[in-house]
Amino acid sequence: MEGVDHLAHERNKAQFDVEEMKIVWAGSHHAFEVSDRIARLVASDPVFAKDNRTRLDRKELFKNTLRKTAHAWKRIIELRLTEEEASRLRSFVDEPAFTDLHWGMFVPAIKGQGTEEQQKKWLPLAYKMQIIGCYAQTELGHGSNVQGLETTATFDPQTDEFVIHSPTLTSFKWWPGGLGKISTHAVVYARLITDGQDYGVNGFIVQLRSLDDHLPLPGITIGDIGMKFGNGAYNTMDNGVLKFDHVRIPRDQMLMRVSQVTRDGKYVQSNVPRQLLYGTMVYVRQTIVSDASVALSRAVCIATRYSAVRRQFGSQNGGPESQVIDYKTQQARLFPLLASAYAFRFVGEWLKWLYTDVTQRLQANDFSTLPEAHACTAGLKSLTTSATADGIEECRKLCGGHGYLCSSGLPELFAVYVPACTYEGDNIVLLLQVARHLMKTISQLQSGKKPVGTTAYMGRLGHLMQCKTDVQKAEDWLKPKAVLQAFEARAARMSVACAQNLSNFTNPEEGFHELAADLAEAAVAHCQLIVVSKFIEKLQQDIPGKGVKQQLEILCSVYALFLLHKHQGDFLSTGSITSRQSSLANDQLRTLYSQVRPNAIALVDAFNYTDHYLSSILGRYDGNVYPKLYEEAWKDPLNDSVVPDGYQQYVRPMLKQQLRNARL
Amino acid sequence: MEGVDHLAHERNKAQFDVEEMKIVWAGSHHAFEVSDRIARLVASDPVFAKDNRTRLDRKELFKNTLRKTAHAWKRIIELRLTEEEASRLRSFVDEPAFTDLHWGMFVPAIKGQGTEEQQKKWLPLAYKMQIIGCYAQTELGHGSNVQGLETTATFDPQTDEFVIHSPTLTSFKWWPGGLGKISTHAVVYARLITDGQDYGVNGFIVQLRSLDDHLPLPGITIGDIGMKFGNGAYNTMDNGVLKFDHVRIPRDQMLMRVSQVTRDGKYVQSNVPRQLLYGTMVYVRQTIVSDASVALSRAVCIATRYSAVRRQFGSQNGGPESQVIDYKTQQARLFPLLASAYAFRFVGEWLKWLYTDVTQRLQANDFSTLPEAHACTAGLKSLTTSATADGIEECRKLCGGHGYLCSSGLPELFAVYVPACTYEGDNIVLLLQVARHLMKTISQLQSGKKPVGTTAYMGRLGHLMQCKTDVQKAEDWLKPKAVLQAFEARAARMSVACAQNLSNFTNPEEGFHELAADLAEAAVAHCQLIVVSKFIEKLQQDIPGKGVKQQLEILCSVYALFLLHKHQGDFLSTGSITSRQSSLANDQLRTLYSQVRPNAIALVDAFNYTDHYLSSILGRYDGNVYPKLYEEAWKDPLNDSVVPDGYQQYVRPMLKQQLRNARL
Repeated sequence: MEGVDHLAHERNKAQFDVEEMKIVWAGSHHAFEVSDRIARLVASDPVFAKDNRTRLDRKELFKNTLRKTAHAWKRIIELRLTEEEASRLRSFVDEPAFTDLHWGMFVPAIKGQGTEEQQKKWLPLAYKMQIIGCYAQTELGHGSNVQGLETTATFDPQTDEFVIHSPTLTSFKWWPGGLGKISTHAVVYARLITDGQDYGVNGFIVQLRSLDDHLPLPGITIGDIGMKFGNGAYNTMDNGVLKFDHVRIPRDQMLMRVSQVTRDGKYVQSNVPRQLLYGTMVYVRQTIVSDASVALSRAVCIATRYSAVRRQFGSQNGGPESQVIDYKTQQARLFPLLASAYAFRFVGEWLKWLYTDVTQRLQANDFSTLPEAHACTAGLKSLTTSATADGIEECRKLCGGHGYLCSSGLPELFAVYVPACTYEGDNIVLLLQVARHLMKTISQLQSGKKPVGTTAYMGRLGHLMQCKTDVQKAEDWLKPKAVLQAFEARAARMSVACAQNLSNFTNPEEGFHELAADLAEAAVAHCQLIVVSKFIEKLQQDIPGKGVKQQLEILCSVYALFLLHKHQGDFLSTGSITSRQSSLANDQLRTLYSQVRPNAIALVDAFNYTDHYLSSILGRYDGNVYPKLYEEAWKDPLNDSVVPDGYQQYVRPMLKQQLRNARL
Repeated sequence: MEGVDHLAHERNKAQFDVEEMKIVWAGSHHAFEVSDRIARLVASDPVFAKDNRTRLDRKELFKNTLRKTAHAWKRIIELRLTEEEASRLRSFVDEPAFTDLHWGMFVPAIKGQGTEEQQKKWLPLAYKMQIIGCYAQTELGHGSNVQGLETTATFDPQTDEFVIHSPTLTSFKWWPGGLGKISTHAVVYARLITDGQDYGVNGFIVQLRSLDDHLPLPGITIGDIGMKFGNGAYNTMDNGVLKFDHVRIPRDQMLMRVSQVTRDGKYVQSNVPRQLLYGTMVYVRQTIVSDASVALSRAVCIATRYSAVRRQFGSQNGGPESQVIDYKTQQARLFPLLASAYAFRFVGEWLKWLYTDVTQRLQANDFSTLPEAHACTAGLKSLTTSATADGIEECRKLCGGHGYLCSSGLPELFAVYVPACTYEGDNIVLLLQVARHLMKTISQLQSGKKPVGTTAYMGRLGHLMQCKTDVQKAEDWLKPKAVLQAFEARAARMSVACAQNLSNFTNPEEGFHELAADLAEAAVAHCQLIVVSKFIEKLQQDIPGKGVKQQLEILCSVYALFLLHKHQGDFLSTGSITSRQSSLANDQLRTLYSQVRPNAIALVDAFNYTDHYLSSILGRYDGNVYPKLYEEAWKDPLNDSVVPDGYQQYVRPMLKQQLRNARL
């Protein structure tokens, strides 16, 4: 952070203790300390520089990522980093790589689905990276519908082996990260066939490449699936295609924790409950929600700082123009995203707790909260990733023309983030799962079953169906109780309306299909209620630091009232609020924006991102935007020569009217 | 279109004459014939192939575009193409290039702002491409606020020259397309200073590069501004930076149609009305609206075809899974975009008429409709480009994971389209201009001034403020009258509410600033009304062809009712419709989606896009998606070798636990 701080006057305006807010954002003093230390470590290491990323071609880009990955592993070993530190380091290196899948999917799959024996055999190899693994589930023709996978694993009792095979083009594995060029092993999902019968999809550990020369083993064809959205983005990753031609693996490489095939080819279920597998899904989706808050906060940090630097219109008597952050239209787009970043952070924190809670219950054979926890994480994954992808793009637009330059960091941030809306469950498919759970919850009310966790409010349906929101003046919307009741009433009434409409269909599945769009909207209403209520719960905790809690209260109100305005139609059509109350909410929002304004820069400083991690000239900590944009431009390869390659051949003949003679 | 047509069964379902619909889409038999012929010409010419675009590095990409541009020019000359044909050819080549700015901005600027003498001198050179020009307006620190530009053009009466100069870093020209590497000339916008006085921003023709060796002339520094969003996209364009160090040009290179500087340095206005310049803006924005319908329809075509190919879930008794286009959630996202493409097409057609009308009136010194036409085009530019950018990204998501591959064509389509939300007027700034016009229209009602054109409905405020929508059952929403009145009531009431709130401020500008977000929403409501009403007007024409008009009526209803559902909050809070009517609209929408379903493929076939132009494997005419995706994957440079570059150096040492000794 050399030189002048062009944003110092903004930082001086802050009405709260930024250092304390950093702790709140990080989650704990410990988490802050680790993040801060590792972020600086990565930022100061020249191997991890990433400012040339968008100028590299595919091969250079990929090789560069291999270089960084190896260097990261070297540093992890040399510095004897803890698991937590190593994971932070990989995340601050900030480039998708095969290691993401190795650590994030391959290892957890073996942990979750392997027997103790299998874990003992494979995990030490994976932990030391003596093997590198990926997660081969999706196929060219099969994504969301895992039960529709076509790859087969046929048991051969003669040799005690499974034969893994790709029977059709659409059965080729397609998309797995790390598969295309690097992984030596994979957990492959395939239909288990034994004794002529199909037992559905199971996981198998399959070696893909020789550990000697890295060549694919016999019967295996592997390649990269080609360029993806964005310049750098996921093109650092070798998403792959994989075709099996009768590849044989020993029987004990089927992941056998939940079900097994015996030596004589019998398919048997173990006494480990299948539901355990859902626990893993809760875990993975919880990390996705937490990542959403990181991605969104990065974009918001860039857009907020640049909005304070950028001036446009409003010059008076030849003075400077107005900072664009002072425009209400800018505030009305930017500050709700700032509030959303905090909201997602806290709901992510709560999900971590939920995962621990579910795990402990599972260990005690208590499955009662699992369906609710599963629906809740599915819904929050959908809600937060959609809002984050849209939010990043909105931040890019908030930076005007310059946001379109790669040096703004925003195009890359968008392109690398947006697949989160699709992977680990397409966001619309997930919303329909939530809706199914809501409909079930309502139908079970009649049989006296008490809804739990985030659906507990459904237990108060009688009240929620006819209550009136108690808001008479704009400031009444600052009361958590009023906000909560409005959100509960809206969510409950939308679900009940769907349930009633469904009851008009003789075939419930047909009804669910026909009303799917409405059901998805009801699910969104339910998920937004969760985020709002968890933000409110967070504020009931003791939060130290001058002004910190007050700022969070403002952001919580911004988040809730922004949603209320955006989904005004839901609130009004269900009669949860009146038009007058809706208009008061809007008035209150404007007041809140004015309160956020002086704190905006400090609120994004609290994310504690290094300039390396942001990799955005517009979002530089010191606000020194224009000279650095100019400097950066000259690094483009097109500027290597004054007269561009191709001028003589293609442009000059045009200018000199010699085109008819030119050979093109 | 070799081989089997995998979508033949879909095409057979169509209930209307596709060939006739092609004519409607194209606008006329003539327009269809030209487009069809030129599209095939481009598609069949190997020089115009573009399937390798995302795999080229910046220099190769740029050189490749120069090659195509020269070839296009060669073909235009050889085939003696008309202006219309030439323009279609450039558009089907489908790569942003310096010629876009030469033909689209440089030539029109001279035409619109140059005197007859200047036109005689410069236009023939430009028409023959003996000079290549660009449009140098925006600066590093100045975009939307043209009046804030800093570049100076100081008249030197001693030499009868202007001295063009960049006094600050923020005054460097930044963004002009074609500037970075190719243009020999530019129309430069600079503050005119003569006799010590600043007369504001004017245009000047400035030569940038030598016509001999293409080197920048003395005092001129030019470069490319670097990588932009997307893999190919706008990286084929040399958006540039330009710095002037006291560059002298003859006085007669100031564009002098509207104002002049005399030999002795006097600034004088000509008798040509300044308003003429607004005519050009109406023209440019009209083409942007028309381009929006093209971009959106391309994305919709891809997503619709792929939705019919893709199957997921719903297999019964081992049969094939369901086509994803049969899911209501897919229909509820896709079909409104299909309807929007048609809606934007027709409003674009109407804008063409409006431009002619305005031009004729201007020539007759009738300026009465200009402010309304100007506001209307500004608003429609904002509305259609925002909806198109969002719509393309939605189409990409509708294609699931595979939409994220560059070979889907959608990432490029998005990245190349999205700057339209920012250039030629930032979309939010434009909405505020519309809002200003609406507030003025309302305030002038009191003085008896009759609103014209698209604001004519404001003349019926008395009725619109208290009318009730006459809809009792779902089908009532099919009546154009009911729809129109609901949209008019909503737009009028939102504007009036803003006007009332504004009147509470003693300082109107402060009120406008404070209520900007609400004003922008009112402007959106007004613009949506325009699009809906122009679609309805189109249907009052005679439209031949079996079933064609019926399909368009369905699409018109889909467009209107989709908006009504999406902005339910506006309609309800203004009391324009009741909750019950809103719910009926939603019921009717579902019925309409079922009616669109069998015609969906034919409705996108009617756009008549070649596979070359779509450049999307997912959107192939024949639906042969999976084999082609697989083929395409192998073309990635990463697949040049089985063991990737970097394996020996970075991956093997990791696997072999030799990292501590490895040099990285």
